Formats: sequence, structure tokens, C-alpha cells
Amino acid sequence: FVRFSPEADAHWEEEKREMNLTSDIENDFYFRYPSFQDVHVMIFVGFGFLMTFLKRYGFGAVGFNFLLAAFGIQWALLMQGWFHSFKSGKILVGVENLINADFCVGSVCIAFGAILGKTSPIQLLVMTLFQVTLFAVNEYILLNLLHVKDAGGSMTIHTFGAYFGLTVTRILYRPNLEQSKDKQGSVYHSDLFAMIGTLYLWMYWPSFNSAISEHGDAQHRAAINTYCSLAACVLTTVAFSSMLQKKGKLDMVHIQNATLAGGVAVGTSAEMMLTPYGSLIVGFICGIVSTVGYVYLTPFLESRLHIQDTCGIHNLHAMPGLIGGIVGAITAAAATEDVYGKEGFIKAFDFTGTYQTRTPSVQGGFQAAGIVVSLLMAFAGGALVG
Amino acid sequence: FVRFSPEADAHWEEEKREMNLTSDIENDFYFRYPSFQDVHVMIFVGFGFLMTFLKRYGFGAVGFNFLLAAFGIQWALLMQGWFHSFKSGKILVGVENLINADFCVGSVCIAFGAILGKTSPIQLLVMTLFQVTLFAVNEYILLNLLHVKDAGGSMTIHTFGAYFGLTVTRILYRPNLEQSKDKQGSVYHSDLFAMIGTLYLWMYWPSFNSAISEHGDAQHRAAINTYCSLAACVLTTVAFSSMLQKKGKLDMVHIQNATLAGGVAVGTSAEMMLTPYGSLIVGFICGIVSTVGYVYLTPFLESRLHIQDTCGIHNLHAMPGLIGGIVGAITAAAATEDVYGKEGFIKAFDFTGTYQTRTPSVQGGFQAAGIVVSLLMAFAGGALVG
Amino acid sequence: FVRFSPEADAHWEEEKREMNLTSDIENDFYFRYPSFQDVHVMIFVGFGFLMTFLKRYGFGAVGFNFLLAAFGIQWALLMQGWFHSFKSGKILVGVENLINADFCVGSVCIAFGAILGKTSPIQLLVMTLFQVTLFAVNEYILLNLLHVKDAGGSMTIHTFGAYFGLTVTRILYRPNLEQSKDKQGSVYHSDLFAMIGTLYLWMYWPSFNSAISEHGDAQHRAAINTYCSLAACVLTTVAFSSMLQKKGKLDMVHIQNATLAGGVAVGTSAEMMLTPYGSLIVGFICGIVSTVGYVYLTPFLESRLHIQDTCGIHNLHAMPGLIGGIVGAITAAAATEDVYGKEGFIKAFDFTGTYQTRTPSVQGGFQAAGIVVSLLMAFAGGALVG
Repeated sequence: FVRFSPEADAHWEEEKREMNLTSDIENDFYFRYPSFQDVHVMIFVGFGFLMTFLKRYGFGAVGFNFLLAAFGIQWALLMQGWFHSFKSGKILVGVENLINADFCVGSVCIAFGAILGKTSPIQLLVMTLFQVTLFAVNEYILLNLLHVKDAGGSMTIHTFGAYFGLTVTRILYRPNLEQSKDKQGSVYHSDLFAMIGTLYLWMYWPSFNSAISEHGDAQHRAAINTYCSLAACVLTTVAFSSMLQKKGKLDMVHIQNATLAGGVAVGTSAEMMLTPYGSLIVGFICGIVSTVGYVYLTPFLESRLHIQDTCGIHNLHAMPGLIGGIVGAITAAAATEDVYGKEGFIKAFDFTGTYQTRTPSVQGGFQAAGIVVSLLMAFAGGALVG
Repeated sequence: FVRFSPEADAHWEEEKREMNLTSDIENDFYFRYPSFQDVHVMIFVGFGFLMTFLKRYGFGAVGFNFLLAAFGIQWALLMQGWFHSFKSGKILVGVENLINADFCVGSVCIAFGAILGKTSPIQLLVMTLFQVTLFAVNEYILLNLLHVKDAGGSMTIHTFGAYFGLTVTRILYRPNLEQSKDKQGSVYHSDLFAMIGTLYLWMYWPSFNSAISEHGDAQHRAAINTYCSLAACVLTTVAFSSMLQKKGKLDMVHIQNATLAGGVAVGTSAEMMLTPYGSLIVGFICGIVSTVGYVYLTPFLESRLHIQDTCGIHNLHAMPGLIGGIVGAITAAAATEDVYGKEGFIKAFDFTGTYQTRTPSVQGGFQAAGIVVSLLMAFAGGALVG
Repeated sequence: FVRFSPEADAHWEEEKREMNLTSDIENDFYFRYPSFQDVHVMIFVGFGFLMTFLKRYGFGAVGFNFLLAAFGIQWALLMQGWFHSFKSGKILVGVENLINADFCVGSVCIAFGAILGKTSPIQLLVMTLFQVTLFAVNEYILLNLLHVKDAGGSMTIHTFGAYFGLTVTRILYRPNLEQSKDKQGSVYHSDLFAMIGTLYLWMYWPSFNSAISEHGDAQHRAAINTYCSLAACVLTTVAFSSMLQKKGKLDMVHIQNATLAGGVAVGTSAEMMLTPYGSLIVGFICGIVSTVGYVYLTPFLESRLHIQDTCGIHNLHAMPGLIGGIVGAITAAAATEDVYGKEGFIKAFDFTGTYQTRTPSVQGGFQAAGIVVSLLMAFAGGALVG
């Protein structure tokens, strides 16, 4: 089924002439490849090492993450290809497809964080197979049918992936898991390995949120907004982690995870005119929500709702993902031609063709609908697969 | 001897006017620098940490790899410069030279994998000195005299480097090495460090194979083909590793090494119209060959042929490199103007000047000759240096 | 206060038309983002892990480095913004500001290296607050008032940061620190973690020195010069480390640190026509100076001058930074129109407007003045903050 996109095909010289391009540098490869490599590192090193904090599960976490991601990207290339780049009977693959496949697998890695240590490799592959399929369907509904903006995937990747994983772990509930609690602890060196994961996710998140934005200003803006949000999030995480612990000691789990919530929460709105100021506020709030979640919500989820969330993805992806969806809806609804400029406004929200008459407030409504659809897909899919 | 290439020289403004370029972004720096950095990481972190799996040799592996690579790139800049970018008495250095120097050193790192733990730093430097020189000669014969395509270096880097290293280790055979076998084992944390090496090699391999391809579609295509081949290789490695072990347990050595064979094996053909489908097949086969090699061939080589291959480079570089050369020869021989387009065909194989009349099947023959030359150079050179 | 720069703003389409740009690729994002990400990795992973060599302080080093850097970049965006990109009441932020903020924080990370293990997180944040402010003032004096060239920050980042940190640690002198000497040792795995830091700093240093150079040839040249200097530095470090130790054993501290001195020392001159040959000489000298410093100078500083320099930043940043400043002054003073070309000469030193008549030798004098100003600011600021 799969062929090269015109920009990767040997016919590029003719394509270039047809499109009236004068230079090879106009090839999408040069716009997106550096971001792609950063995203690639986030999926394989970032998510892999983030989960090495468990004392006896470091190699398993990295290895299984490697396995499911390598499987997932192949399946995602096909599934997303059918929905998004299917032309005259062929799927046309370019660098943007590779990024999207990595994104799709990212949502599987998130879900993996909830069930870490509970499943066999075969079960993981089955979960990957179904989750990737559902991801592609959900993404198609959001981006194509609802015409929603979600470049950094607050809704499609984080909200969907996290609630999918939480539903699966709820169904796989094992009461006797408590007894092997000693394995769930961490040791000194495993915490340093986990910091490798944390830092790579943190550093490359601006690339994640800007990887598939429009060429030019949108990519530029997405990187700046994410950078600001993440920086603010680190400070509130440390402050609240210190406040909520006895003697003001820092909890390594918070540093390893909650510091990333700021990147999740600007996933939808990063390419919009959120401004650095707005990003700082979003990061500030998410650092608090996520840290408080680790301290109070995770124990509650486990004891009352029987949701064993090994890596705490509810605090890192689920809640910040929801916040990100809401921030995106608000930012879209508040957009004006004054702030964006006439052309910029149309370009930013792609208000062309059948969407020519859509207003910002209507767009905000559709963005909100996108959150609900993602949640429903996650619960239904998770229950089925679990 | 060394000066800046026109694109790195302060006369660039005049050069730009002469070449009729309108923008600084046309500078080769922007086409190649992101790939260069990825290749750089592969050489120093990738190869360095891949070899940390030995219990008591982690620091030595990383440190000596650092030393020989830093020495090798300087010597390679000179040697390759004399052969490839020597103009009016000066070697002109640009970003492409830096990538080529890293490539050359890559073949030394591969050879180092075979003799790891057997040699002193001084011996390593001597080996580097000779291997870099021979590499440059071999590369000159292949690329300039035979007019062979080998952008990802299946032949020049992997086949040459691996058989060179294997010949050296054969000559340095030490029967009593068996006795210190306990040091050759691995421990938990050293395996996690080795996974850092594996993952960086795996993730950045698309940059490796596309780094010195032609601007535009060829770089784009090389990245996609490599990505697909590597993903397929991970799955077959895991499947066969699990099948060949007792109780279906995964062997960490396979995960750390055989998963990379897919990148080696598309080194020559990645920039051609191999298509994602073809890449998946190549990766699929290489995962099997490499894993089976670790299980059956490495013990055989050591006990019968007295080749002590510490890191198993025969399975990771030698065999996949040969496969890569053969796949390249076949892909080149099968090329048609229909698939490549008239202009794309000429551009892909550089059928200009004296090579204007060369046909695909002749090109395929020369590609095959390139494999033979690389093997001969490796055996002769390895025997001499050993 | 903060708004997007025109290249990150949604008005970019109009901006593009006004500037007569035909393509989105002309957006500064594509010139600088790959370098930015490399610099980002250096600050958070490079400096963070470089300091993990202490036996019981690995997590603290990475964690506190993360905290102070995340805080520092926010404050630096504001402080540098007021001095450098303040237009009609607003700070305009683009990707270059993000790089500059990372640079500024780099000097804080350097100073942190001197006081590692002596201060509380709150004290670190206070130091960051003041140091970032002083950095911005010093940078303004050098770049804007003295019109000095310092793209890689030998003076503004390394000399200033290192002597600032050394002054602070002198004032915080604690004689009883000797007693806990056992904690200051290193263990096997912590040395491997430190090598992660070393290698990322080493590999990405060409990006560091070229990140904010002029588009085109200057960025290209800065990367090549730094690459050569670093490679030479590794060899002399290893050679001298081996010569100065008993039995020729290598000292891990030297490998981890002195190998980087070559990057520091071409910080000012990398974008000039230093030539690869000149870079090799600078790297050669710095490897010697830095290694000798670790062996003889650090013990002397501690016992006589009561300067407890935990990470040895005097050898890695202070002395090579001074050398870098001097090399920059000499290279600038020796510049001729013959070597640079007429246009290249003006572009390289920005001899336009009020600086139209400045000669190379005068520029060399101002460069030297920049070193003195940086030193004075560092001593005064360090004494105050300490």
C-alpha cells in the first residue's frame, strides 16, 4: 500500500518545477526533520527511561517500551495513512507521517505507564494494536470531522492515552499486587536513570508541540510557548513538593514527573497566540495540580477506585491533558483578527473552504467537543481492550 | 594544508552572488548540520555506551572510544581531505567533511568492538591510524574509481570495519582469555547503560544513512527507508530471541545489538527507491540473521576459528553489512526510469559525465565489485595491523 | 511585558511580504532551532550529569541544576529582553532569546560547579537571581557599549561565570568540609553518569559556539573551528593525564573535564577566520593547561587560598575562558580584508554605523577590555552575592 510522498520520491525534481520551488531546502524534510528526531528521542529514551525508577524493572521498562513503540509505529503508519494520506489507492509517506506515527505511539507509551509491571509482552502488543487503531479513529474524528486544532496532542495523545491506560489498569486490578510493594520502590541509581528520561522529555517538549504545526510562525510560536510553560511548571512543582512533604524534603517522583505537566497542558494551544505570559500561567497551575495529584489523588485512586496507576499517569497526562484541552478551547474562542492579523487568523485556524464562516466561539465549542469525544473513546476502548 | 570550504569562508557573500543564491539558508550547513549532530552522538555516545555492558569495563569502553574517535576524526579530516576535497594545494573543509570524518571513525569504533578489553590505549591509537588511512583508500576506490553508491556505508563502513576488526582479533587470539570470563559478564546497571547506546544508535540511524545523501528527496527517502527497516528489525529480533532461548526469555544482548542490524543493511540502498515495503523486508531478514548469529555463530567462531568477538560485531555489522551491499547492488540493478523519473534517475545514480552511458545492471555489477574490494582491503589491512 | 517577535507572531505573513521573503524557511526558527536544542541539552543534561560524579550527590546535582536553570531562563528572558530586544514598551521574544537565556543560565551552572554541595536550594535561587542580573549587565556592556564579539561566550559566560563562582565559594569557605571528604569521592557508576554529561557537552559544543553567530558562513565556521579544537584537546588531555599520574594511569576527572576546555577556549574566536589549524593549536594548549591545573593548581587553591572548587571549574572554565578571550583579541587584531574579503570583513565584525571606522587593532583592544570588565564584574558580584 505504501509509497513515498512526492517530496521523498525520486520525481521530486519534476514536483519542484511544478510547485514553482527554486530550492531543495523547501522540501518538508528540512522543515520537520530536526523536530522529528527530538520526538523520536522522547518516545524511545524519554518514555523508556522515565519508567526505570522501579527497582527491579528498569530493563523491562526500557525494553518493552522499545518493543511496543517499534511495533506501534509500523501499525500507525498504516492506520494513520489510510485516514490522512491515502491518495489514488496508495498511502504516501513523508517525514510528517513519521512524526505522526511517533505521536500515536506516544499515547501507547503513556497507557503503558499505568499498567507497567502487570502485563506480558504479548499482552502489550495486543494492547498496542488496538490502541493505535482507536487512536487513528479518534484523531480522524477530531482533526477532520470536528476540524479541531490539536498540534501538541493534549486531547488526542495525552487525554486519550491516559484515560485509556487508566481504564485498562482498572480492569486488570490485582489486589495482591500490594504484597510485592517492595519491588515498586526505587533505588538511588534507578532514580538517576529516570532523570535521563525526565530531562529528555522536558528539553524536547518544545519540539513535540511544534513538530507538526504550520511552517513558519506557528512552529516558532509553539516552541516558545512550550518552553515558557515548562520552565514555570518546574518551579511550582518544586515549591509545592517541598511544602507538602514533611521537613520540606523534595520528593523525587514529583521532580521526575510533575515538572513535565506544563508541556502537556499547552499541547493544544501552543501554536496559538497564547503569549509567553499565558504559558507561564498554564505551567504554574499545572505544576500545582500535578504535584497535589501525586500526594493526594494517586493513593485515593488506588484504595477507593482500585486503579493502580504505577507511574502516576493520571497526574502527568490525564489531568494536564484535560487542562490543555480546555485552555485550547478558551484560547481559540478568544481569538480575534486584531491579535492574529487578517491572514494570520485564517491560517492559524485553517478557516478555509467549508470552514470559511466558522467563528472563534464556534471553534471553541468544537474544541470542547473534541475533549468529550477523546474521553468517550478512551473509556470505551480501554474497557474493551482491558 | 587545511582551509575553509567556500560555504564556511568569510568570502561566502561573494560566493553567494556568484552561485546566484538569494539566501543564507542555501548554505550546506543548514542542509546537513542536524544530521551531523545526530551522527556525532552515535559515534561518541552510541558506540561508547553500547560497549559498557561488560561488568568491569564500562568506563574503559566509553573512555577509549572517546580517545580513539577524537584522534581518528583529525586524521580522517586529513586523509579524506586529500582524496576528496583537495583543491589547488589546500584541503577545503565544510560540514560534509566533518560527517565523513565521523563516518570513517565509525568503522574504527566497530573494529574496536571486536578487540574490546584486549589492547592498550597506545595499540588502539596505532590501529586507528592505520585503519583510517586504509578506510580513506578503500572509500576512494569505491566512490571515485568504481563510481559506487554507498551513502550509509554498508560496504565502506560496516563490512570493511567489521572484517578488519575480526581479522585483527583473530591474530591477537589469546587462549587464556577464557579464564577471566567472569569479567566478560554483565550486571544489571551496565545493561541499562548499554541500552542508552543502543537506543541512540537506533534512533539516529535514519540521520546516519541520510547525512551525506543528495539534498532534497534523497535525504528524505533515506530517512524513511531506514526508519522502516529498523522498526521491522526490532520485532523479528525479539521474536527470534524469545524462540531460541529456554522458556522464551529475552536475551539482553540480542535486544542491545541485533535490533540495529536493520539500519546497517539499508546503508547502501536507503537513498534509492527501496520503498518502505522493501525496507521492512530487509529489516525483517536482518533481525533473524543477526539473532541467529548471536546464538549459534559467535560460539562457533570462538571455539573453532579462534575469533574472540567481544561485542559480536560479526552479527551486528559484518553480516548485515554484506546483506546491505547485496541489497544495494540488486536495488541499483533493478532501477528503471519509470520508477525514478528521467531526471531523478540520472540524479540518483549520478549518471553524468563519463558515467553517462552506464546502465543500471552495470551499476549493479560495480556495486557488487565494491563489496569484494572492501572485503579484500579489510582482510589484508587487518592482517597487517594485527 | 513580553510579546512574540515578528517571526513568531501570527502577523508573520505580512512581515514576510514586507521583508520581501518568499519562503517560510527564512524564518529565524529554521536557522537556529537545531542549535537551540543542542544548547538546551548541554545546560540540562550536560551540566547536570557532569556534576553527578560525587558519590552521594548525583541526584542533588541533577535536580538542583534543573531547578536553578528552569528559574534562571525565565529571569534571563526578562533581563536580557530589557537590554537587547525591548521595542516600544514590549520585550519581543524569538528563538534567539531562548538561546541567549540558556547561555545566561550556563554561566550560573558553571558557578554552581564551584559551590556544589555547600548550599541549600533557596541559596542557589538567590544566587541565580543576582548572577543572571549581573550577567545581563555585563553582556550589555561588552556587546553594546564596547562592541565586542563573543558568540560562544568565552568572556561573558565562562570567564564571568567561573570567577563569579570562585569568589562565592571563597567567601563560603568551610574548613570542616575536609572531614566529609569521603562523600566527595566517586564510585564506578557515578563516573559513568558523569561521562554522559561530558560527552553531551563535548558533542554539542560546536552548536553552542555557533548558535547565535550570523546566518550562513559564520555559523558554519564556528562549528568547524570548535570541532577541531575539541578533538585536539582530548588528545593532549589524555597524554598529559597519563604522564602526570603514577604508572601512567588515566585520571577520570581529567577525562571528564579537561577534554572540554578546547570548546571554552575558542568561544570568542570560533566565528572568526581562526582556521582549523589555529583551532588545533588552541585545543592543544588548553588540554595541557587544564590538566596541569587539575593536578597542581586545584590543591594549591584549596590549601592556600581557601577556595574549595568542587568541580574544578577554575581549570575547565576560568583559565580556558581567559585564554579564549585573549585568542579572540589576537584573532580580531590580526584580521585583514585579504583573509575575510571586503564584505566578509565588515560583516564578521559588524563594522557598520558608528563603528564604520574601527580598525582590527582597535577591535583587538576592545576585546581585551572586555576580558577585564568581565573579571571585575565577576569579582565584585561574587563578593556581594557570597
